[in-house]
Amino acid sequence: MDSTQVMRKFSLKEGDVVEVVTADSEQYSGTIIPSADAEALTLKLPSGYNVGIETGKINNIRKISPGKIVAKPAAIEIKRNPALPTIAILHTGGTLASRVNYSTGGVYAAFSPEDLITMFPELAQIANFEAKLVSNIMSEDMRFSDYKKIAGAVADEIRRGARGIIIGHGTDMLAYTSAALSFMLENLPIPVILVGAQRSSDRGSSDAAMNLICAAEFIAKTDFAGVAICMHDSSADDCCAILPATKTRKMHTSRRDAFRAINDTAIARINYRTKEITFLKKDYAKSNSNAKSELALKDRFEDAVGLIKIHPNMHADEFLFFKSRKYNGLIIEATGLGHMPVGVAEENIKIRKAVQSIIKSGCIVAIASQCLYGRVHPTVYTNLRILSEMGVIFCEDMLPETAFIKLAWLLGNYKKKEAEQLIARNLRGEITQRTEFETFDLE
Amino acid sequence: MDSTQVMRKFSLKEGDVVEVVTADSEQYSGTIIPSADAEALTLKLPSGYNVGIETGKINNIRKISPGKIVAKPAAIEIKRNPALPTIAILHTGGTLASRVNYSTGGVYAAFSPEDLITMFPELAQIANFEAKLVSNIMSEDMRFSDYKKIAGAVADEIRRGARGIIIGHGTDMLAYTSAALSFMLENLPIPVILVGAQRSSDRGSSDAAMNLICAAEFIAKTDFAGVAICMHDSSADDCCAILPATKTRKMHTSRRDAFRAINDTAIARINYRTKEITFLKKDYAKSNSNAKSELALKDRFEDAVGLIKIHPNMHADEFLFFKSRKYNGLIIEATGLGHMPVGVAEENIKIRKAVQSIIKSGCIVAIASQCLYGRVHPTVYTNLRILSEMGVIFCEDMLPETAFIKLAWLLGNYKKKEAEQLIARNLRGEITQRTEFETFDLE
Repeated sequence: MDSTQVMRKFSLKEGDVVEVVTADSEQYSGTIIPSADAEALTLKLPSGYNVGIETGKINNIRKISPGKIVAKPAAIEIKRNPALPTIAILHTGGTLASRVNYSTGGVYAAFSPEDLITMFPELAQIANFEAKLVSNIMSEDMRFSDYKKIAGAVADEIRRGARGIIIGHGTDMLAYTSAALSFMLENLPIPVILVGAQRSSDRGSSDAAMNLICAAEFIAKTDFAGVAICMHDSSADDCCAILPATKTRKMHTSRRDAFRAINDTAIARINYRTKEITFLKKDYAKSNSNAKSELALKDRFEDAVGLIKIHPNMHADEFLFFKSRKYNGLIIEATGLGHMPVGVAEENIKIRKAVQSIIKSGCIVAIASQCLYGRVHPTVYTNLRILSEMGVIFCEDMLPETAFIKLAWLLGNYKKKEAEQLIARNLRGEITQRTEFETFDLE
Repeated sequence: MDSTQVMRKFSLKEGDVVEVVTADSEQYSGTIIPSADAEALTLKLPSGYNVGIETGKINNIRKISPGKIVAKPAAIEIKRNPALPTIAILHTGGTLASRVNYSTGGVYAAFSPEDLITMFPELAQIANFEAKLVSNIMSEDMRFSDYKKIAGAVADEIRRGARGIIIGHGTDMLAYTSAALSFMLENLPIPVILVGAQRSSDRGSSDAAMNLICAAEFIAKTDFAGVAICMHDSSADDCCAILPATKTRKMHTSRRDAFRAINDTAIARINYRTKEITFLKKDYAKSNSNAKSELALKDRFEDAVGLIKIHPNMHADEFLFFKSRKYNGLIIEATGLGHMPVGVAEENIKIRKAVQSIIKSGCIVAIASQCLYGRVHPTVYTNLRILSEMGVIFCEDMLPETAFIKLAWLLGNYKKKEAEQLIARNLRGEITQRTEFETFDLE
């Protein structure tokens, strides 16, 4: 029985508040919301979290109160304000693009400019909006083919004259996508800002509105061009940060200020109350400043690229897998300055030989550090020198996640020889100068 | 030709300052130091870093100045001070245990208590010392068999009556070892403190002395029992932190304050100047407080345990590898609250089925988050529920690195059923209470 049948059986509709008892005697109370999974009934709990309950396991459902029939608010008629720039909003999925107002029983998608402005009236003062649904998937399900779709939609909107673009995106793999778009869209003439929400729009503590409004402000009021991320700068609802596309990481599972620049600083900070924008970096690309350089869409990715994280007691087979499957690129997320087991124990020597044979088979092998902060170094210690001489490429202070995206992108768009030369050379801010070695915002 | 033959050919000895020119026209100046790699000549550069030069690539060597023949300082005669406790120092390798004073040409190992006190005279005021060389390897080469050796040496020293134990360890995999020892040594009656150095003892900026002296102070002056890490608390040479064995991570490739407690706080802070010790945690295990519980050495590890880090565009084969090689445990370093690709695209559905079949084959699959900070959650989103129902175990706020060590340890010492029950249950502080959910020292 799927969730629609269950709802019919118990005479329920979306928005009803119910109590569900399962075969395992678990009990849930909450509001019925649309379910992404047909075989589950999804409830919005009073905590704001959603829970999916397998329909096969439901013993009984008791209706506590019927959903209020809330008419979808009459769409505000939006007059185009010729004094304001136009921002395109591309939805790809995730919490920001999720349906809202379940708690009142009024369930509707919020994709159109009218919906957005009904939800966030402040937006109308900032810009005119165009909206497009590119996809509606959780970001952890994204693949390289999705990047192609998003980059294509961005190029379309640029052709149509958008002043800037906001991409609504799930937070889990948002930073991977921002790195990917940054590489794919060369000579980007406008700002493309990825926005996510750590809490869904229908929770009181949601960060969706503030992240979205700050992104729109930043696009409308500054001359920045390029890909960046706009998320909460602290857990207080006071500021958002504009974060560098290739040097940012989701560093907390649930906090609103989970996104952090690593080995780098935020590009700018936006005060949500005063709308004051402070640039923390002086040398950023400016919009339309390089009109002579045409936007180049380089949207291919090599499919056979892997990432392996170093830990104690590894086995050579774990590396040889990538050779047997003919991978063309491999990022090793090494320890410290770029170490991995290559000595002393017999199995470690086998690992060293495995990496050697992977390289000989034509695969590019590059190293970034699981420390995340700091820079790898190809010669400080003997074990590092062994790796360098085998042909392993050290990726400076690049994040392992960015290194993975970059290597797949390089192999998709360049010859192997070029990819080898470019992987450890800065293209989109993914590698900073050695002088910034000691950047460490953990303290 | 090995490095000894090269040195003979050019009439050189350790301590000589030389200029080396390679076949690639590279030029290096520095002091000859003992080489771990027979086929390389190792120079200590003026920067303090070491460089290894492959002997086959050496074109010419010019002696700039001969090494001063520095007599090994007469060993201080150390009188056992019966008023002071005895601390055992176990060397396993790494920068702390490395030979010192290369720059003066005086090259000697610093393993004996006499050597240590010659180097760090302050130690004599703190305790009597016993020293033992367990191994001398870079920590990235450590395997489970090395953990067994170290834990055995710890148990020996406890039997011999040590008040506490300091373990000198390379920093790269120090936190993996601290987690391992924490699980292996049940009912530990004394403090076992792992100490590393991010800069070698012969560099002016070395953190070796301070980390060692603070660890000794902590052992001598407090009632703490259990495994912990002692490293710089900040980049200033003012304080060391005593960090929790199972919740600490090396978060910077080169900084002296690279080690950070994640989802937890330091146990204590030691002011190096005043020697004041401040406990930041009140409920720590106390030495000899549970004399009725005998030390249990549980030192077995399951060899076939893997770790896979989630990233975009993965392939089902990368997971099926662990099934084909009959792995008994697998840690998935997932995104956000514990996500991985299980939906939408065909290859993602294959990954979902691969994980399902790995579990059916009898392998324990557990999830921790690559965010590092925060807690994974088995039910918030549909994709999480899918994983939970497949039998994937969510590891709360445990670090992925600790989860890997713990799973291998559980499978080595317990039945599968017990390992499944214990992996997400707190045993050694590796999982904190939900009330501490928002701990996030990144800010």
